[in-house]
Amino acid sequence: MSVYLHDIPLSQAQARLRDALQEADLWRMLGMEEIPLDENALRRVTAEPIWAEISSPHYHASAMDGFAVRAVETSGAQPSSPVTLYTGPQAQYVDTGDPLPEWANAVIPIENVESLDVEGEITSAIRQPAAIRIRASVPPWAHVRPMGEDIVATQLVLPAGHILKPVDLGAIAAAGHQSIRVARKPKVAILPTGTELVPIGAKLKAGDILEYNSLVLASQVKQMGGEATRYPITKDDFDLICQHVAEAAQTHDIVLLNAGSSAGAEDFSSKVVEKLGTLLVHGVAVRPGHPVILGMIDRGQQTMVDGQSSMVPIVGVPGYPVSAALTVDIFVEPVIARWLGRRPLELPTETAILTRKIVSPAGDDDFVRVVVGKVGEKLLAAPLSRGAGVITSLVQADGLALIPSGTQGMEAGEKIQVRLYRNRTEIEKTILAIGSHDLTLDLIAQFLAEHDRRLASANVGSQGGLIALKRGEAHMAGSHLLDPKDGSYNISSIRQYMPGIPVKVVALVGRDQGLIVRKGNPKGIKSLVDLAGSSGVGSVQFVNRQRGAGTRVLLDYHLNLLSISPDSIMGYNQEEYTHLGVAAAVASGRADCGLGVAAAAQALDLDFIPLFQERYDLVIPKPFADNDLLAPLFDLLADSRFRGAVSQLKGYDVSMMGTVILEDG
Amino acid sequence: MSVYLHDIPLSQAQARLRDALQEADLWRMLGMEEIPLDENALRRVTAEPIWAEISSPHYHASAMDGFAVRAVETSGAQPSSPVTLYTGPQAQYVDTGDPLPEWANAVIPIENVESLDVEGEITSAIRQPAAIRIRASVPPWAHVRPMGEDIVATQLVLPAGHILKPVDLGAIAAAGHQSIRVARKPKVAILPTGTELVPIGAKLKAGDILEYNSLVLASQVKQMGGEATRYPITKDDFDLICQHVAEAAQTHDIVLLNAGSSAGAEDFSSKVVEKLGTLLVHGVAVRPGHPVILGMIDRGQQTMVDGQSSMVPIVGVPGYPVSAALTVDIFVEPVIARWLGRRPLELPTETAILTRKIVSPAGDDDFVRVVVGKVGEKLLAAPLSRGAGVITSLVQADGLALIPSGTQGMEAGEKIQVRLYRNRTEIEKTILAIGSHDLTLDLIAQFLAEHDRRLASANVGSQGGLIALKRGEAHMAGSHLLDPKDGSYNISSIRQYMPGIPVKVVALVGRDQGLIVRKGNPKGIKSLVDLAGSSGVGSVQFVNRQRGAGTRVLLDYHLNLLSISPDSIMGYNQEEYTHLGVAAAVASGRADCGLGVAAAAQALDLDFIPLFQERYDLVIPKPFADNDLLAPLFDLLADSRFRGAVSQLKGYDVSMMGTVILEDG
Repeated sequence: MSVYLHDIPLSQAQARLRDALQEADLWRMLGMEEIPLDENALRRVTAEPIWAEISSPHYHASAMDGFAVRAVETSGAQPSSPVTLYTGPQAQYVDTGDPLPEWANAVIPIENVESLDVEGEITSAIRQPAAIRIRASVPPWAHVRPMGEDIVATQLVLPAGHILKPVDLGAIAAAGHQSIRVARKPKVAILPTGTELVPIGAKLKAGDILEYNSLVLASQVKQMGGEATRYPITKDDFDLICQHVAEAAQTHDIVLLNAGSSAGAEDFSSKVVEKLGTLLVHGVAVRPGHPVILGMIDRGQQTMVDGQSSMVPIVGVPGYPVSAALTVDIFVEPVIARWLGRRPLELPTETAILTRKIVSPAGDDDFVRVVVGKVGEKLLAAPLSRGAGVITSLVQADGLALIPSGTQGMEAGEKIQVRLYRNRTEIEKTILAIGSHDLTLDLIAQFLAEHDRRLASANVGSQGGLIALKRGEAHMAGSHLLDPKDGSYNISSIRQYMPGIPVKVVALVGRDQGLIVRKGNPKGIKSLVDLAGSSGVGSVQFVNRQRGAGTRVLLDYHLNLLSISPDSIMGYNQEEYTHLGVAAAVASGRADCGLGVAAAAQALDLDFIPLFQERYDLVIPKPFADNDLLAPLFDLLADSRFRGAVSQLKGYDVSMMGTVILEDG
Repeated sequence: MSVYLHDIPLSQAQARLRDALQEADLWRMLGMEEIPLDENALRRVTAEPIWAEISSPHYHASAMDGFAVRAVETSGAQPSSPVTLYTGPQAQYVDTGDPLPEWANAVIPIENVESLDVEGEITSAIRQPAAIRIRASVPPWAHVRPMGEDIVATQLVLPAGHILKPVDLGAIAAAGHQSIRVARKPKVAILPTGTELVPIGAKLKAGDILEYNSLVLASQVKQMGGEATRYPITKDDFDLICQHVAEAAQTHDIVLLNAGSSAGAEDFSSKVVEKLGTLLVHGVAVRPGHPVILGMIDRGQQTMVDGQSSMVPIVGVPGYPVSAALTVDIFVEPVIARWLGRRPLELPTETAILTRKIVSPAGDDDFVRVVVGKVGEKLLAAPLSRGAGVITSLVQADGLALIPSGTQGMEAGEKIQVRLYRNRTEIEKTILAIGSHDLTLDLIAQFLAEHDRRLASANVGSQGGLIALKRGEAHMAGSHLLDPKDGSYNISSIRQYMPGIPVKVVALVGRDQGLIVRKGNPKGIKSLVDLAGSSGVGSVQFVNRQRGAGTRVLLDYHLNLLSISPDSIMGYNQEEYTHLGVAAAVASGRADCGLGVAAAAQALDLDFIPLFQERYDLVIPKPFADNDLLAPLFDLLADSRFRGAVSQLKGYDVSMMGTVILEDG
């Protein structure tokens, strides 16, 4: 068993797969089927060009309700000298869409006609008068839709490889078709493997991993136009995996073998491929997604249909969810596109400014998930978590930025190409918040979503937020920075970190800060004094917030008052980036306590020892404060439903919500 | 019956509908349903915010295959002074994803470990050695995915009103859910009415109108997230329509009553609404789509479920296909969005330069379908057919431009806002061809589609094409302009109409031009001489091409040689814009003959009298000739499959295809 993977460049890996498919005569549309022309044809792909069988209209049709006439007989009609035409030989009533009589070549709209009875008097028998009187002439073919106005028989209606939209279906019907040949949907088998996997909904114990990759993969395949089969979980048994893969290969066009593709002890995937066929690639220089496996396996002779290839491609999809989803986008989408005869999916690309430095291995094509927002005139890309296990980074991503192999990363402020998942209009409705985290931000996100705005928040601590505002990288920052000199909040820090920038500061909430401890407070912690090694409580493991966080400033302020040295606190250098991260560390037993807000303790059913009260403000540079983009946010601060929702969180005080603390002129 | 509609502004019409829905307590999410978390949840809309039930990972997980250790016990390890840790108390093998033992706080990857046996010798028992030797220390939490790295219990995973993507389903599963509450799909009844309507697939006679609007409408509704019921066609019988509408209202959330909404004799829709409920709007100042009807009707007491509104909105959708589709986009989409709790669809908007003057009624919001392409650095919008009956204008449209009420139109060269149906990347792959029409262009479109390019062609005649090229409005023009002086093609016209612009001219095809006549040539037409009123053939009705078309230049040239005056030709001023248009005019009996290409006659099973041969060239400004965008086009001219397809058209000669006629330096 080879423990180390040999990564090849992405383009080489894609080329190997393409060459192998070409050799197996599988780099082409797989086949077609004729389906009825109904709503189920939506989003299917045309397998052939569609040519018009008939013209539309298929006759000269009246474009108005009115009277069909010979244009030449209307000549000379004027307001002062009307012309009278007798119904029957000279004029015939037609509704919109009616065919013109053979002899007619124009239509006079009904509203331009006086209906006359046999005596020549005006009558209300609009449709069947004896004659009509007109006071204006019409040119030939006026108010007529000539045959073929929309579609001329034999013309191209749609090319092959076209994804059908609603109006396309109408045009195909208008062109005389009642069924349509579309590309057959590629059949994709998805096999999750791993003894540690448990199905969605199972009761979890430590070490269990929820198997949801097959759900994501199947949904991706469905969205791409394929038909996915999700197999049940196969445990790590080589023969069993071989057997299930071989079975799947008999009835599918491609097999996705998920997990087991890292180089660890349970790595069967590459051996499975080697046993059942040819291993093309084991390891690709792409992040996330390194341990990708590509191969071709035998379909199994006895099940082959005439003309069918004897080979089936197989992709060993890495186990981490982000790697898995990107592997399908990168390797499987182009194959499905080819099999359907359509263009591969191409996301629109925009140039954005990177907000944070990114370090990237020089040998890899590195796909970085980013949040994109427009701040002033600048389009910004803020990198999300790089972890291959962090599926929320894909959920939150507005786009994907590629750091190509050959570069070791990019600096903050550099221009970067981003493939966008959302369109510009949506992105321009995104409020970028950066700074300190507060649970209220999740509630704001939910309420703003109801008002046509999206809140994308990055948690970098209060100080980091003000610095980001100074650099023009966000619309607002949540901040709770205590001034140790006078006990005031935020203003002195704002002047220090963003000098000369006019701002509006609005109070969001007052909140309790205190020690989050395990249920029942087993270590009997009462105050900050108990954190120091010298205290009587015994060894207390602390978990801290990151440098620059307001909570950390608060801690340092009080440690200083109490003359406690940070060195005497075990875990002072263990950093978490959110209140809930601190609470989770305590809940898991990794720490005995941490400083944070009551709501975080409540959320994970922990105990809370309130120590201080503080104010959490929103800091907004002046230009954005008067901007349409943020208007719904200010409305929210006065919304009783929102205030109610916040007050239900433990330890929160909404009495100052919306109060303007500072507004520069 | 009121014959004249009273049009109200679009915004007012939308407001009336919204107010009526609000009053009926229907301006809100309709309801929710709980569905299993599987692929069918894709594209459904979350009915509630989704909060995390569990953290992910839900335990501290090893991020690598390796050995779990206490970080503190690795300190001091260096290449020259290794540290040995005994398995059991100090080190424990873990696979990626395994939980850390209680006592461990870091993982050393297996590739950084030497496995030792009981004698302290290196062993190949990688997973179960007696001890491990390491030559580097690790910090705490190295190679560990701490609990909550991805998701912390209680955090917001997704807001309400979110359209579910594949990765979202994974995140929801990771957060501990196995089902999901989504908005109930709004039920939309679609009732086509009209005695003239026939279903798709019916044998057509003059006056029959194919009923495909219900297919387009149902597909739109499906794409918007609703559930459509297509009713069979109801003939124009007031009581029958009332009965069917009332039935549909009992089981649907909204009724779309299609056709019968113009002010003609068969206009029952507004009376139906008045009989069954309240007419809110009859006529909206919007083009296309004028005769829109909006109303609220009674659901019918006996079928009401508790809490359900007693009212159901009804939309009288105009009969013309473009009006019908736009009415649903404008009036129904925002309602469905509201009922689903999601944001209304918003197309991205770009500023483009209008290529042609548009005249628009000052009182109307006028929606113009446009083809969009990038020529050089300019984004151009070329208006398509304005006809409400021309569904192909929606099929071909890249976007929709609004000429707002209050303006009487826009000039060529003005900037216009376009709502784009395609993304920029696709638009930048569009080749804009403008000029003379040739059937070969349809074949080029089909072949280019296979090579990641889209051909959008506008037919304005050869001369119009050259003028458009001069104005920088297209990438190429098809042209067959005869120089009456020397019998050469195109070059003198190019110098005349686009002086100083370097071009490349490539021959596309040689083709026959001649008279297209009815099958059997009943009028016995032999040559141009027979067109003149004085000829012996008798009265011949001619159909001409538009001014500037190469075919018209050819006609005028030969008429001049024969000293025939255009005034002597009946129908000389009847203009068609394509060869097939001319053929259709002859096939329908509207004309006896027209000058055109053989292929057009063949397409409609007409006879053809060849008179002349001519060359049809592609004219390409130099910068585009060397551009990536057009490269696949030049490849095509050398492609034997393409040449074969063209030679199968009657009257075409491909021997010169691809020959460079002129290339400026």
